Amino acid sequence: MSKKVVVIYSGGMDSFTVLNKAIRQGYEVYALTFNYGQRHVKEVDVASQFCMHNHINHKIVDISAINQLIGGSSLTSDIDIPEGDYDPDNMSSTVVPNRNMILLSLAIGYAVSIKAEQVMYGAHGGDHDIYPDCRPEFVRRMNDVAAIANYEAVEIVTPYLTASKEAILRDGIKMGLDYQYTWTCYNGREQACGKCGACKERLGAFAANGINDPLSYE
Amino acid sequence: MSKKVVVIYSGGMDSFTVLNKAIRQGYEVYALTFNYGQRHVKEVDVASQFCMHNHINHKIVDISAINQLIGGSSLTSDIDIPEGDYDPDNMSSTVVPNRNMILLSLAIGYAVSIKAEQVMYGAHGGDHDIYPDCRPEFVRRMNDVAAIANYEAVEIVTPYLTASKEAILRDGIKMGLDYQYTWTCYNGREQACGKCGACKERLGAFAANGINDPLSYE
Repeated sequence: MSKKVVVIYSGGMDSFTVLNKAIRQGYEVYALTFNYGQRHVKEVDVASQFCMHNHINHKIVDISAINQLIGGSSLTSDIDIPEGDYDPDNMSSTVVPNRNMILLSLAIGYAVSIKAEQVMYGAHGGDHDIYPDCRPEFVRRMNDVAAIANYEAVEIVTPYLTASKEAILRDGIKMGLDYQYTWTCYNGREQACGKCGACKERLGAFAANGINDPLSYE
Repeated sequence: MSKKVVVIYSGGMDSFTVLNKAIRQGYEVYALTFNYGQRHVKEVDVASQFCMHNHINHKIVDISAINQLIGGSSLTSDIDIPEGDYDPDNMSSTVVPNRNMILLSLAIGYAVSIKAEQVMYGAHGGDHDIYPDCRPEFVRRMNDVAAIANYEAVEIVTPYLTASKEAILRDGIKMGLDYQYTWTCYNGREQACGKCGACKERLGAFAANGINDPLSYE
């Protein structure tokens, strides 16, 4: 019997690559998507469509009520999404307080419920300077908690923890993935803006791999 | 200026005592109550009334959507609440997967949002054998994560971590607290059942302190 794994799957490039990697590695995958009030809720739509078309177990959980507690990020409010480079100063308004601890704790609870021993998420090297909850030290300490928080130990697995966005994309291309089924732009409009930090980072990864991004841009 | 603290306040005896202790210690208290689909939602009502009458900052957040992920505990489903002693075998059906990691991660996010440096919760000695996420080791490891998960470190404080229910009640009585404004019974009926493990433990604490429980029982 194949091992069960919960994959936190936002609909973005990184978690899309993690999801498909887990499937190719033979895991029985349970994809888990959160609606936490992010304005780029379009990522939830692409996640949903991809799982439906590929017969992947998928739960979408609406936890947007928690914005009463942790609202105020530009990702979840009316504050303008910053344009320009994907660097700490410029992206600071996009930090959602304690986001990954919240999402991981829910994913771990789900893993315990379905007797999965692992939770995977797409933390990667390019986020370390911007989001404290994407750093290796955070993952290590979360794993220390996840080992003892329940009667059943759960392991948090981060296949791209120190990889760059470019390297993740390279791995996905090797797997033959079609990145048309992903969403990155922090603005929630019909087409990607091409100007926010997230778009810039995405476009940079495609350029570095010498291929065109299949998404259309404004 | 007094220090801000977020207190996870369920409406039960332990968190009620923690809340009042924090107020007496001069903290600026932000009480936080979760509706996670527990059938004893009456505890949320008493929490709300107490805060309203005493002009305490209070947020109630409905996260019952997460029962799609972690349902199946007798606290959150149709499974009968066990009667009898408050011991691990008997109470195992009341374990909600990863509950305290989930609630603490949300409370920490809230603390970061309002610039509070501490989160208090009522983990206590009587729960260690039943709920893994009430143990000192769990609290220690959560603190290791909470220190680095955000730009701002948050400390988890558990004033009764190794105290018995009896000792907590003794402390509360010393503070002059009226436990009429608490709810303990795991069944969500009009009056407390007096038979479930939670009621038994409560009644035992009152008996050990030589006083009567102000609640009415069926």
